[in-house]
Amino acid sequence: MSTLNGRGSPTARPRVLIIGCGFGGLAATRALAGAPVDITVIDRSNHHLFQPLLYQVATAGLSAPSIAAPIRHMLRGQRNVTVLMAEVSGIDRQQRQVQLSDGQSLGYDYLIVAAGATHSYFGRDEWATHAPGLKTLQDAFALRARVLKAFEQAESTPDPALQRACLSFVVIGAGPTGVEMAGTLAEIARHTLKNEFRRIDPASARVLLLEGSPRVLQALPPELSAKAEAQLRGLGVELRTACRVVGIDADGVEVQAGEGAVAATERIAARTVVWAAGVAASPLGRMLDVPLDRAGRVIVDGRLHIPDHPEVFVIGDLAAAQSLQSDGRTLKPVPGVSPAAKQMGAYVAAQILQSLRAPQGQVLPPLPADAPGAFRYRDYGALATIGRKAAVADLGFVQFSGYFAWLFWLFVHIYFLIGFRNRLVVLMDWAWAYWSFQRYARVVAEPVDAVQKAGG
Amino acid sequence: MSTLNGRGSPTARPRVLIIGCGFGGLAATRALAGAPVDITVIDRSNHHLFQPLLYQVATAGLSAPSIAAPIRHMLRGQRNVTVLMAEVSGIDRQQRQVQLSDGQSLGYDYLIVAAGATHSYFGRDEWATHAPGLKTLQDAFALRARVLKAFEQAESTPDPALQRACLSFVVIGAGPTGVEMAGTLAEIARHTLKNEFRRIDPASARVLLLEGSPRVLQALPPELSAKAEAQLRGLGVELRTACRVVGIDADGVEVQAGEGAVAATERIAARTVVWAAGVAASPLGRMLDVPLDRAGRVIVDGRLHIPDHPEVFVIGDLAAAQSLQSDGRTLKPVPGVSPAAKQMGAYVAAQILQSLRAPQGQVLPPLPADAPGAFRYRDYGALATIGRKAAVADLGFVQFSGYFAWLFWLFVHIYFLIGFRNRLVVLMDWAWAYWSFQRYARVVAEPVDAVQKAGG
Repeated sequence: MSTLNGRGSPTARPRVLIIGCGFGGLAATRALAGAPVDITVIDRSNHHLFQPLLYQVATAGLSAPSIAAPIRHMLRGQRNVTVLMAEVSGIDRQQRQVQLSDGQSLGYDYLIVAAGATHSYFGRDEWATHAPGLKTLQDAFALRARVLKAFEQAESTPDPALQRACLSFVVIGAGPTGVEMAGTLAEIARHTLKNEFRRIDPASARVLLLEGSPRVLQALPPELSAKAEAQLRGLGVELRTACRVVGIDADGVEVQAGEGAVAATERIAARTVVWAAGVAASPLGRMLDVPLDRAGRVIVDGRLHIPDHPEVFVIGDLAAAQSLQSDGRTLKPVPGVSPAAKQMGAYVAAQILQSLRAPQGQVLPPLPADAPGAFRYRDYGALATIGRKAAVADLGFVQFSGYFAWLFWLFVHIYFLIGFRNRLVVLMDWAWAYWSFQRYARVVAEPVDAVQKAGG
Repeated sequence: MSTLNGRGSPTARPRVLIIGCGFGGLAATRALAGAPVDITVIDRSNHHLFQPLLYQVATAGLSAPSIAAPIRHMLRGQRNVTVLMAEVSGIDRQQRQVQLSDGQSLGYDYLIVAAGATHSYFGRDEWATHAPGLKTLQDAFALRARVLKAFEQAESTPDPALQRACLSFVVIGAGPTGVEMAGTLAEIARHTLKNEFRRIDPASARVLLLEGSPRVLQALPPELSAKAEAQLRGLGVELRTACRVVGIDADGVEVQAGEGAVAATERIAARTVVWAAGVAASPLGRMLDVPLDRAGRVIVDGRLHIPDHPEVFVIGDLAAAQSLQSDGRTLKPVPGVSPAAKQMGAYVAAQILQSLRAPQGQVLPPLPADAPGAFRYRDYGALATIGRKAAVADLGFVQFSGYFAWLFWLFVHIYFLIGFRNRLVVLMDWAWAYWSFQRYARVVAEPVDAVQKAGG
């Protein structure tokens, strides 16, 4: 089967198989536009998701189609691409084949695995039911329904304890997603729902943000964390750092603060708990049968190859890659953020093009991460928004926060949104939300009986 | 408990309980703004739905928030209203109480039941799994996912028979919803998905519209039905009238044409079947324990009262009401359309206000449907759209079809949409769809494994 440079027949064009069409997979696909290859893109979903704005869907600020575009529509003009909505059930590195759950197999000459990440509950998978995370549109819909129904139930129940629990929202994990969720929930309670209830005051809702480390937004410098914490408190968020969640069930969260003899455990009654704490690599990494790091990510070399298989690349959140810092000496892990995934996608596409230009049969050799030509992550900075007019930005050479950082965040997100229509609609939705304090996507598709069955 | 005019205490304001916040319930609530009553609106959903455009959500032309607005947001300014998202589990006419499924009871002095209608499979409830209908947002999401996944599966399967079945869409029932669905599906196949597939030609998809009676859009004059049929055929819809569906399963539909000895049965293999044929009144009607008509609707008098209970009104699709025609002599059933529901809502609100002005303890007596003062339905005409630039309109004094009817349909629907923002966004979405042939809401939230589990 494997002839010359490994393709199925010497006359056919090399087959590039890309698993996952997030930021990494999409960037690789687009970078191969016009190349003499046959690309197949496989994704479990029919859409590419602009994940940085997913929390806006979860908090009713945007509708799903504003941040999700059909993959095949985005790639319709690229004639060397076939898009398949399918689930990968196995990878055979030796035969160079990928098995799909519908029983089909697809051969490849180059494989790019860009399957991303999922939630990790640190071994406590039973928490997933009570504390949903936020990775897919389904997650966002479920969370939106939970938040809106909590206010509904608070209004309809005559039981004051249940009412109190319905009006308590706990966000676990103070990374960018957790901070955005907590800030937006506080805003919804204080502003959006004003005057809409008769029996409860939504502004009395508690929003708690729990974080294990001593400060929020660990990836940012401490001064910006402090700014973000002040902005969160200004919005009414109760912030608890250096605390540990030790239990989650249908009725709330158990939190431990302090260590050893001074450790104290507290129960917080809450009907809505959001998990923004742990991320684990996609289980697809295990199918490759190669060394993984502790988070389940695939360890790759400087060319983002897996060991002994220079025709298999792993990119994005699934890759445990190292990159030289700007000092040119220290190696640091590439962070699991969308710019890194995009850069990796473009990089492996360039590697494939280079390999195609090489004499037949020659594949590019492994490369240490600190060698010239190895992948280097360019860090353009970090941004996190906290709420209306509140954000922090770290562009490396400059740091700022507050209203201007918020405007900057807005501009950057609109700019990177896919498709002209989405940009325009999102801008309109935000302008509307800004002036009216309203969030227009407050739709719970399931009727009330579904709520009661779900116990929430 | 019942004193004076029936309210809980002589000093408290009369309690008006409204079950269902569709067009009828909303109109009644709004017409009681400022009245000296305490209104409670109960709905299973958190949103009022603009049902005439629901097929646009099902066919990916609009996002859900464009046609659904939170009920409590719409009514936030009306201080005499409390909104509860709840499910009614029983009605006690004697005690004047409504039971909710969470165990609470609510007393009333006036009750307006406006619970609407649901699908009817004419006793073949097992068809529901294979041929979903279109009444709620959940229905629309399910249908949208089914249609989009059918094209996806056609692209990914190597089995030509399955491919064919995936590319066959059957719409059962040629009322306004069926005609709109069939026309839009044909448009999606011919235009929207152009150039997006590599292994199939979406334009080769079959769209079949099956109707039991001899013509489409029975409520319209025969000439307009003929126009609509020509427009449907022009869009590539295969139309079969005077045929009877005798079986539906996961693989397709069984259709019978002709009668007796000349009856012929045909099997149509199709993975997507849409039910737009039968409507039944909400099961809530049965809770009233009063006479129902064949479709399960509650038989009401000229004041929309139920027998012996002038404090209980039934309106909208749940009511079997009669109305004098413009000739002033013939009685005809009020049709189950949104203008009728709105008119009934306003009418019963006026009845309640009149009863409040009457001397204490006096309720308005029953009234025959042809008596002066009885409810009279004003028919402003009927409209149905078929697709891009194709529609038919019957305004009584004038009938027209084609491009102008389509523009008129567009204008009417935008005008009646709730909320300024929605109107603007819907108009933008349609302008965009018109110029680009695109439909932006092509999102399937569930990943592929859910598809395979669902067998479609």
